[in-house]
Amino acid sequence: MSTDQLLRPDEIPWIPQADGVWFRPLRLSPGLGTWTNLLRVTRKGTINLHRHVAPVEAWVIAGQWRYLEHDWTASAGDYVYEPAGDVHTLVTVGDEEMITLFSMHGPIEYIGPDGQVTYVETAETKLKRYTDYCASRNDGAVPVIA
Amino acid sequence: MSTDQLLRPDEIPWIPQADGVWFRPLRLSPGLGTWTNLLRVTRKGTINLHRHVAPVEAWVIAGQWRYLEHDWTASAGDYVYEPAGDVHTLVTVGDEEMITLFSMHGPIEYIGPDGQVTYVETAETKLKRYTDYCASRNDGAVPVIA
Amino acid sequence: MSTDQLLRPDEIPWIPQADGVWFRPLRLSPGLGTWTNLLRVTRKGTINLHRHVAPVEAWVIAGQWRYLEHDWTASAGDYVYEPAGDVHTLVTVGDEEMITLFSMHGPIEYIGPDGQVTYVETAETKLKRYTDYCASRNDGAVPVIA
Amino acid sequence: MSTDQLLRPDEIPWIPQADGVWFRPLRLSPGLGTWTNLLRVTRKGTINLHRHVAPVEAWVIAGQWRYLEHDWTASAGDYVYEPAGDVHTLVTVGDEEMITLFSMHGPIEYIGPDGQVTYVETAETKLKRYTDYCASRNDGAVPVIA
Repeated sequence: MSTDQLLRPDEIPWIPQADGVWFRPLRLSPGLGTWTNLLRVTRKGTINLHRHVAPVEAWVIAGQWRYLEHDWTASAGDYVYEPAGDVHTLVTVGDEEMITLFSMHGPIEYIGPDGQVTYVETAETKLKRYTDYCASRNDGAVPVIA
Repeated sequence: MSTDQLLRPDEIPWIPQADGVWFRPLRLSPGLGTWTNLLRVTRKGTINLHRHVAPVEAWVIAGQWRYLEHDWTASAGDYVYEPAGDVHTLVTVGDEEMITLFSMHGPIEYIGPDGQVTYVETAETKLKRYTDYCASRNDGAVPVIA
Repeated sequence: MSTDQLLRPDEIPWIPQADGVWFRPLRLSPGLGTWTNLLRVTRKGTINLHRHVAPVEAWVIAGQWRYLEHDWTASAGDYVYEPAGDVHTLVTVGDEEMITLFSMHGPIEYIGPDGQVTYVETAETKLKRYTDYCASRNDGAVPVIA
Repeated sequence: MSTDQLLRPDEIPWIPQADGVWFRPLRLSPGLGTWTNLLRVTRKGTINLHRHVAPVEAWVIAGQWRYLEHDWTASAGDYVYEPAGDVHTLVTVGDEEMITLFSMHGPIEYIGPDGQVTYVETAETKLKRYTDYCASRNDGAVPVIA
C-alpha cells in the first residue's frame, strides 16, 4: 500500500500558464480528477473569468489578491473556501507577486465573452502542461504526487 | 444537523435529455459538484461521446448497454466503475430499454467532432434542467436530495 | 491510465459479517478510504448501532428495511442518502431478505452500550475480511475494483 | 447558493488539544466528515500514534516535524500527502514550534498500546472541541467555514 509522501516544491519548476501566471504542480491525480498546485501571479497577471465545478481550498502564502466579483482581499496567511459554482476573475492587489496553494477538488471551466466554456482545466490537462513543458526544455519531469 | 433521507424515485419525473434519453435526479449537490441520477435510454438512444472528469459509479437496473470504445456489455445487476479521464459513447444492446443508477463524483464534458468540448454537464446544469422542465409543465419540482 | 471497469457481482462470494448479515465487495479503495458493497440481511439480521463518519449512498435492490431511529421504511427501488454523523441501527422489515447497494465515502464506527466506539470499519478492514474469508476456504480472492 | 468565503485565521483562537498541541479550525464540515485546520506543536508536543482512514494533505508553514515511522523531515514550505491507511506518530524536530495546515478528507483513529482504537477524531468532534472551548471562556465561537 502507498505510504506518506513528502514533496519539496522547490524541486518542481514554475510552469508558464498565461502572461504573468505560473503554476507548480504538487499532486496530480488524473484518475480522481483532483490536484493541488501552487499558483504564482505577478502584478500584471490575471486569471480570466472561470467557474469551479468542484470545491477549492486556498491558502495564501505571499502577496495579496482578490476576485473582481467579490469585495474582499486575500492576504498571506488567509484561507479561502470556494464551493462549486462560483464564477470569478482573479487579480493581484499591490505590487508584490502572489503565491497561493490551491487544492482543487475538480475541474475549472474558463468562460468566454459570450458565457461559453472556452477551456476545461483538469488534472489531466495540468499533467500534460507539466510534462510538455519539461520535454520542451529537454528536462525529465520531476515526479509529483499521483 | 442533517439526517438520513429517503427518496422514492417514482415520485420524480423522467426529464428528457436527448432523443431516447431521460434522467431522473435523486441527489443534486451543486456546492459539491456531485450528483446521483437514474438514466433511461431506449433502443434508439445514444449518449454521445463524453469524458468524465471525476470518477463515476454505475449500477445497472434494467437492460443492457455498452460503450462503443470498450468490448464488454453491462447487464442488469452489474457494477461499473469509471475513473476520471475515460472517454466513451453509450449505446443500448438488445431491444430492452436500459435503466442505470449513476453516481457522479463530478462533471461530464461532451466532446464534438474535432475533439472540442461542446458542453459541460454539472450538478448545477442538471438542477436547471430539472427545474426548467417542471416549470414548463407548470409543475413544482419535487425536492430531491441536496 | 486506468479505464472503465465492469464487475459482475455474482462472481464475488457473500462474505459473512454477522449473524444473518453478509457483504459482497465491489470496490475497495484503501488509499482513499472509500468502498462500495452489496449488503444482504436476512429476517433475523441486524446491523448494530453505528455512526457514519462520511456520507453514504444506498440503493435498495430487494426487500425492505428500516433504521430503528427513523420512521421511514426503505423498499426495493428506493434511494437513501446518509450524511456523516447519523447514528442508527438497521433491521429488516417483513419476511423477505434485503439486498442493498451501499457506496461508502468513508468509515463506520460501531458503538457500544456506553456510547464508546467498539470497532471502526474501513476499506482496509473490509479488504482484510474479504481476503481472509477466501483464504479460509482455500480460494483465491476474485479481484474487485481498487 | 453559497459563494466564496474568506477566513482570517488570526480571528480564531488556538484550541488546546494535548500537552503542547493546539489546533485552529478553518473549515469544519460535519455532514461531509471533512475539515481543514492549522496544527501547532511546540518542542515538547507529540501527536500520538494514529491512523488516517481518509487521505490528508499538509502544507508546512513554520518549523520542522517528522513521523517516527518515516525517515524524512518536513520543513516550512514542504507539501505532504498521506493516503488512507498510514499509521504514524508526529514529533517536532529542532527548537522551533511547528505550524502546519492540514486538510483532512476524513477521520483519524488514535491507536492504543495494544493496537486498539482509543478515540476517533471527526469533523463533529473537532466542532464540539471548538465550541466547548469557546463556551468555557464565555466567548462565542467565531463562525468557521462549514
